[in-house]
Amino acid sequence: MVGAVRLGPLALLLLAASALAHYTPDWESLDARPLPSWFDEAKFGVFVHWGVYSVPAWGEWFWYFWQGEKDADYEAFMRQNYPPGFSYADFGPQFEAKFYDPKKWAEIFEASGARYVVLTSKHHEGYTLWPSPTSWNWNSMDVGPHRDLVGELGPFLREKNIHYGLYHSLLEWFHPFYLLDKENNFTTQNFVKAKVLPEMIDLVNKYKPDLIWSDGEWEAPDTYWNSTEFLAWLYNDSPVKDQIVVNDRWGKDNPCNHGGYLTCHDKYKPDTLPKRKWEMCTTLDKNAWGYRQTMKSNDVMTDVEIISELIEVVTFGGNYLINVGPTRDGIIPPIFEEKLRSVGSWLSINGEGIYASKPWRVQMEKNTTTIWYTTKESDVYAFFISWPKNGVVELNSPVPTYSTKVTMLGLSGLLKWSEGSMGKGLVIALPEFSPSIANMKTWTLKLHKVE
Amino acid sequence: MVGAVRLGPLALLLLAASALAHYTPDWESLDARPLPSWFDEAKFGVFVHWGVYSVPAWGEWFWYFWQGEKDADYEAFMRQNYPPGFSYADFGPQFEAKFYDPKKWAEIFEASGARYVVLTSKHHEGYTLWPSPTSWNWNSMDVGPHRDLVGELGPFLREKNIHYGLYHSLLEWFHPFYLLDKENNFTTQNFVKAKVLPEMIDLVNKYKPDLIWSDGEWEAPDTYWNSTEFLAWLYNDSPVKDQIVVNDRWGKDNPCNHGGYLTCHDKYKPDTLPKRKWEMCTTLDKNAWGYRQTMKSNDVMTDVEIISELIEVVTFGGNYLINVGPTRDGIIPPIFEEKLRSVGSWLSINGEGIYASKPWRVQMEKNTTTIWYTTKESDVYAFFISWPKNGVVELNSPVPTYSTKVTMLGLSGLLKWSEGSMGKGLVIALPEFSPSIANMKTWTLKLHKVE
Amino acid sequence: MVGAVRLGPLALLLLAASALAHYTPDWESLDARPLPSWFDEAKFGVFVHWGVYSVPAWGEWFWYFWQGEKDADYEAFMRQNYPPGFSYADFGPQFEAKFYDPKKWAEIFEASGARYVVLTSKHHEGYTLWPSPTSWNWNSMDVGPHRDLVGELGPFLREKNIHYGLYHSLLEWFHPFYLLDKENNFTTQNFVKAKVLPEMIDLVNKYKPDLIWSDGEWEAPDTYWNSTEFLAWLYNDSPVKDQIVVNDRWGKDNPCNHGGYLTCHDKYKPDTLPKRKWEMCTTLDKNAWGYRQTMKSNDVMTDVEIISELIEVVTFGGNYLINVGPTRDGIIPPIFEEKLRSVGSWLSINGEGIYASKPWRVQMEKNTTTIWYTTKESDVYAFFISWPKNGVVELNSPVPTYSTKVTMLGLSGLLKWSEGSMGKGLVIALPEFSPSIANMKTWTLKLHKVE
Amino acid sequence: MVGAVRLGPLALLLLAASALAHYTPDWESLDARPLPSWFDEAKFGVFVHWGVYSVPAWGEWFWYFWQGEKDADYEAFMRQNYPPGFSYADFGPQFEAKFYDPKKWAEIFEASGARYVVLTSKHHEGYTLWPSPTSWNWNSMDVGPHRDLVGELGPFLREKNIHYGLYHSLLEWFHPFYLLDKENNFTTQNFVKAKVLPEMIDLVNKYKPDLIWSDGEWEAPDTYWNSTEFLAWLYNDSPVKDQIVVNDRWGKDNPCNHGGYLTCHDKYKPDTLPKRKWEMCTTLDKNAWGYRQTMKSNDVMTDVEIISELIEVVTFGGNYLINVGPTRDGIIPPIFEEKLRSVGSWLSINGEGIYASKPWRVQMEKNTTTIWYTTKESDVYAFFISWPKNGVVELNSPVPTYSTKVTMLGLSGLLKWSEGSMGKGLVIALPEFSPSIANMKTWTLKLHKVE
Repeated sequence: MVGAVRLGPLALLLLAASALAHYTPDWESLDARPLPSWFDEAKFGVFVHWGVYSVPAWGEWFWYFWQGEKDADYEAFMRQNYPPGFSYADFGPQFEAKFYDPKKWAEIFEASGARYVVLTSKHHEGYTLWPSPTSWNWNSMDVGPHRDLVGELGPFLREKNIHYGLYHSLLEWFHPFYLLDKENNFTTQNFVKAKVLPEMIDLVNKYKPDLIWSDGEWEAPDTYWNSTEFLAWLYNDSPVKDQIVVNDRWGKDNPCNHGGYLTCHDKYKPDTLPKRKWEMCTTLDKNAWGYRQTMKSNDVMTDVEIISELIEVVTFGGNYLINVGPTRDGIIPPIFEEKLRSVGSWLSINGEGIYASKPWRVQMEKNTTTIWYTTKESDVYAFFISWPKNGVVELNSPVPTYSTKVTMLGLSGLLKWSEGSMGKGLVIALPEFSPSIANMKTWTLKLHKVE
Repeated sequence: MVGAVRLGPLALLLLAASALAHYTPDWESLDARPLPSWFDEAKFGVFVHWGVYSVPAWGEWFWYFWQGEKDADYEAFMRQNYPPGFSYADFGPQFEAKFYDPKKWAEIFEASGARYVVLTSKHHEGYTLWPSPTSWNWNSMDVGPHRDLVGELGPFLREKNIHYGLYHSLLEWFHPFYLLDKENNFTTQNFVKAKVLPEMIDLVNKYKPDLIWSDGEWEAPDTYWNSTEFLAWLYNDSPVKDQIVVNDRWGKDNPCNHGGYLTCHDKYKPDTLPKRKWEMCTTLDKNAWGYRQTMKSNDVMTDVEIISELIEVVTFGGNYLINVGPTRDGIIPPIFEEKLRSVGSWLSINGEGIYASKPWRVQMEKNTTTIWYTTKESDVYAFFISWPKNGVVELNSPVPTYSTKVTMLGLSGLLKWSEGSMGKGLVIALPEFSPSIANMKTWTLKLHKVE
Repeated sequence: MVGAVRLGPLALLLLAASALAHYTPDWESLDARPLPSWFDEAKFGVFVHWGVYSVPAWGEWFWYFWQGEKDADYEAFMRQNYPPGFSYADFGPQFEAKFYDPKKWAEIFEASGARYVVLTSKHHEGYTLWPSPTSWNWNSMDVGPHRDLVGELGPFLREKNIHYGLYHSLLEWFHPFYLLDKENNFTTQNFVKAKVLPEMIDLVNKYKPDLIWSDGEWEAPDTYWNSTEFLAWLYNDSPVKDQIVVNDRWGKDNPCNHGGYLTCHDKYKPDTLPKRKWEMCTTLDKNAWGYRQTMKSNDVMTDVEIISELIEVVTFGGNYLINVGPTRDGIIPPIFEEKLRSVGSWLSINGEGIYASKPWRVQMEKNTTTIWYTTKESDVYAFFISWPKNGVVELNSPVPTYSTKVTMLGLSGLLKWSEGSMGKGLVIALPEFSPSIANMKTWTLKLHKVE
Repeated sequence: MVGAVRLGPLALLLLAASALAHYTPDWESLDARPLPSWFDEAKFGVFVHWGVYSVPAWGEWFWYFWQGEKDADYEAFMRQNYPPGFSYADFGPQFEAKFYDPKKWAEIFEASGARYVVLTSKHHEGYTLWPSPTSWNWNSMDVGPHRDLVGELGPFLREKNIHYGLYHSLLEWFHPFYLLDKENNFTTQNFVKAKVLPEMIDLVNKYKPDLIWSDGEWEAPDTYWNSTEFLAWLYNDSPVKDQIVVNDRWGKDNPCNHGGYLTCHDKYKPDTLPKRKWEMCTTLDKNAWGYRQTMKSNDVMTDVEIISELIEVVTFGGNYLINVGPTRDGIIPPIFEEKLRSVGSWLSINGEGIYASKPWRVQMEKNTTTIWYTTKESDVYAFFISWPKNGVVELNSPVPTYSTKVTMLGLSGLLKWSEGSMGKGLVIALPEFSPSIANMKTWTLKLHKVE
């Protein structure tokens, strides 16, 4: 049955055939599904944008700005470097992935402390990083690398207990079926039936992802995409029904409202505590998600920017998904590798207050220095980025008890503390500032038994 | 409606909707349709095999022998000239068509005396020579030439009153949907619904061909291909319903049995008079249909071989379709051009006995020299290739009458003749052999008023 | 010693060291050298223009018209098909010679009846078809074919007793040393010492050619090129001193005056009998010497044009050198192969009156048909192209004797003849015209014992 | 005259013509030339390795390991990614330099604090990064970038007061002339006369470099290279005779002995104070000088490694030249840019003790922490990398006076100090360790008026 399903416009009918469905294809039912716990515990993931756009290497929206927007800069770039008439598809054979080494990728991701990785199985360009039968001669097996890029990475991640997520764009800017449906105001579903559903089902059946990071939903309603039907199948009958996690981009007006966890919009970062699980995705190259040849060192986030944003996001209950764009030959640029290793190094000391933590009753407070809080079991973790000049940190929110103990992650020994002025909070004497403390970049106080 | 039809798996349903159908989707009805008269009158056509196979330039079955058969010669060629892993699709951008000049093509075809031209809109490789929406990024607009090769040729042909035919392969060796259906013993029709029918309908609607030269039918029955439904639509409702001509390759066991005119098998040439209209297709390069870089001059048919085969075919009621394979840059190799012009030069004198002629009651007789016959109105045409040493031609089959007159096409004046020995046939005194007669290569006697 | 010679600016000094010189480096001495007899006897040769210009395939002067003349058509061609800034040298790696098969070439040349072949070892572009040490990274071993194209052909020609000639251009349009010398009004010889002499000496020592077809002399005097010194070495001391033949292009104002045999200018064909041995070079593609992708069949000389020109040239004491331009992949286009085979077929019958013949006392006469004459020993050969309508040929010039016998090459038996009117010449009754005679295209009467 | 010089084997003779020479072509005279003062004052430079090797991107010795050593890894890389027979020269057109922006390079170099930049005008592969007339069709104007890479950078450097040095390899691994001379045990000088001298003279005349970084000398004596003659010309008559600085690689057994400043061998770093000015060259990518696609972040030197090595080198009187390898498209990889900017940031505070400093009477001492010393005028600078736990630095070597004052670069205010135990040296109380001090990475104490 699977064979027929993955390939056909009949997919939908078959989906409906599921007899013992727990979930019905409507948002009320689907939204009620509890999120598998691994996701909230993971906190930190790495996003990977890789595709034919890595060849011109001007960012992942290259095709759109060049031929959709007809942006003058993009047109000039093509005019200066390629023969007239050169098409985006002509880039395909140059996406060689000569040095793609998924084992090394997995080692880097492990070293970063990431607990999940999300790879763009297909971006808006429509080129698939796996041999999709419905993307014939526009996929990584037929054109360019001649390898199953999606398939090769999975086992190496799992060996390291990293969850595997697949980004998938619903829309494809220039697919003729999509353009036709769009012209028809999405009253027809040629594209969905011929491409979207078969490919999503194929991805799920072949690679058994832990996460589907849906995108490209924004021009059409979820009814066009048949999203609720797909999700019902995914939750009821698919081989990943128990562990699968999805985001909220399943139709126009959908993000922030329905689906799995919330992403709302790119680089979404709320400043109050959302009611549902959410994720902030952002990218090391501040200017793009796909590899840019002309990236400067100043375009890249610093260690402290990354770590502090990670803390902030976790504090407010989110996950933090940070993006890297490999080159067309499959290299993760060393500048990205270095940043990932820095985060990993920090997490190796401070991860105790991050992984599997929960938001505390207070997320942040600003005193002499800004403090972020998380909690896990009977501990509260307080993070701060600026070391106070006087070596003293004041925490207003925690209420000390008789059993309260304070330590700093990475150091042995208890820290001295006293009750705050006006009987509020704690006043903690930090250890003397030293080069090894300086190396930690950002610091975590662990408060045992506060209220 | 057209928009929806051309793009969808719904095509079939829409086809069935035709209300005032003259033809029903069964062979009995379809076979009974009279062949539009232009085809039989045309007699001589040019076939053009052009596609991505013109890049490696080792014949049009390159992909199959290389990766289907794993033929050692093909594998060695790839190993010696391309990097490991180079795929067939990687050839796409090299199919540049840099010098494709459809106007010049039309001039050459006109000079050949052809009354129709058949271009491979899509061969077994699946690459379409027009922007097919169901062959995204594997067509001549998206990859390689960046032009509508099919669309550009039509107007130039029509300007010269040459009918436009489109070759179309039903199967595609390596299309994943086709392979799936095949695995399912053709009990599923994923491929037909997603590719075959939408593309054929698109071709008809866009280019309004006079002829569809179907091929690639041999592995599956016509019921798999939905051929009768397609033909019923084509004959009843399509924009070309009046002039369209098709051949007989619409399903396994179909050729020589059903459809339009008969082609039976490649280079088919019967030796008795078939009951139905037929066509012999053959190719100037004896070893291939697609361009071969390594073609030698001896691989190419000679003028006399072409002309004598044309005569023979017409004599037996057939049409003669002779193939050329242009280069990847769209050049018709001069050796082919020369042969085509030679035929055209011969037809400019002798075409009177060819175009719009009918088989005579006798097709061929062998006396001192071999004679082929055609007829038109009250004339009989007798062709011979070897000039008899004694300058006398004996025709046994025609019965002279009082009004009988004999001329030779290309010469003025009547030839002397007398009744044959034993009162049978005619004995004709040829004119004295001369260089200008020698130039004609093959000669036509026109017998006015014989029985 | 050879090693040092072939590589250095010292070449010249070494040349001068020759002690027992028969020939001194001045024209009086050099011009007096008798031409080795093989050349006059050969009569018919094939010229081959092959180089990087075979890639753009617009004729061998591509680079000059594009970047020297800045011809609008050439610039447009580059603009439309290549990225901006693409240079001529960038074509190098695309000159692949994938199918170069020198054995097959030799077979074709043998079939043409050619007794010598002249290959462009280096044209005005400067790219050498052999691994020249003074043309590093701009030769066929380093860039493109990675083969010694000159070296591979020789043995196959010699196996078939075909003499091997090497075309060599003195000038190189864009070589910086040449341009510098030119700017200095050829008062400096940087180019000659660094390139020209080392390469000519290298060619001679490595490949032992039978003929050097010099060209590119026109902008500078022979004193600039050191031509007399080179020729003195060639005639006195080189390994080919006995059989070597050279032409007359060794300096401005040189052609038609000094050197070996005369070529005067391209396609030179005198209409009176020159005093010195000469050669007409011409090309099958009337528009170019190098391969042109856009060549039409009408651009190519016909069989009769080639054969009649060959006769005419031989009649006037010349050799006939006909050119073909192979493709960048090393294929001799079939249209050229076909013409060469046609000439060979004609020569297999009529070569008796061509090879090793001498001009007769009369070269040509025009009566009812035009007649060309050659002679060998006691025979005179009369060629005619138009078959006279009355089947009678009148020859005014030969004086018959009692022993005179007339035959036609290719036919057995004597032809009847009588003395001409007014006691002048012969009147010969031709055999009856027939298809087999027609196939010969041009006819040769052999007059035994006329005066 | 220049025109003739730059192009010919006559170069040498012309060099000898210099009449008023201060320097004679022997080492005694040449070694005695005082080094122009800018070089010692500069202290810190950036080295740039860029060439055709940036295309395969496996280090700058690619060609040698692949085809000289036939190293299995290199051969496998070629076999797996290129067609058989692909040559090194075939890489040429792929060296595109599409994004080469010399202005941005100059900005990065300025930000690094470098006072000079050395670009590989030609490496051992022989490809020149400028339009060398003696490297026709194997230079950056004819093949690949189609730009004068050397020429474009100079003005942007000079605008920022950065001195411009040119690396130049004497040998070329595979140049036929070099191989011939080598076979002749360097008793012939074909290569030197045809390539080396003309190109060095051309470089000097065209680009007026401040420094020539000679290399590739090791197989032949300086007499082969005509090094003393060249240097005599350079010092006496060249347009850069006043400011030019050269290193010591001018012939076998030359390095560390003769020429300008000493480099001895790659990554040379003496541990006692040399008598002559020297330079340590090293590279940010520990494994290569040319760009490597497979470089990992751990292969790259850290900020502290670079800064501490710079200090150490300057302390011992050397200059520090740190290398980056741009990509084939002319991008300085961001990881390198980041490191360069870090050094620049450190130098912006601590450069006072580096630039134009002199070695002090003590270079280094090891107490509780290691101290390096430099001096300038009446100040001594003491650098340390590890911050002492007790906040106290003991300096044994300086002798305090009544006027002694101690400050730390980057901080305002005087530091407290007392005389060392046993009346030796100073004991300095550091300021309290803080995050801003931590950011400096390495610290400089400025000792005013010590002895």
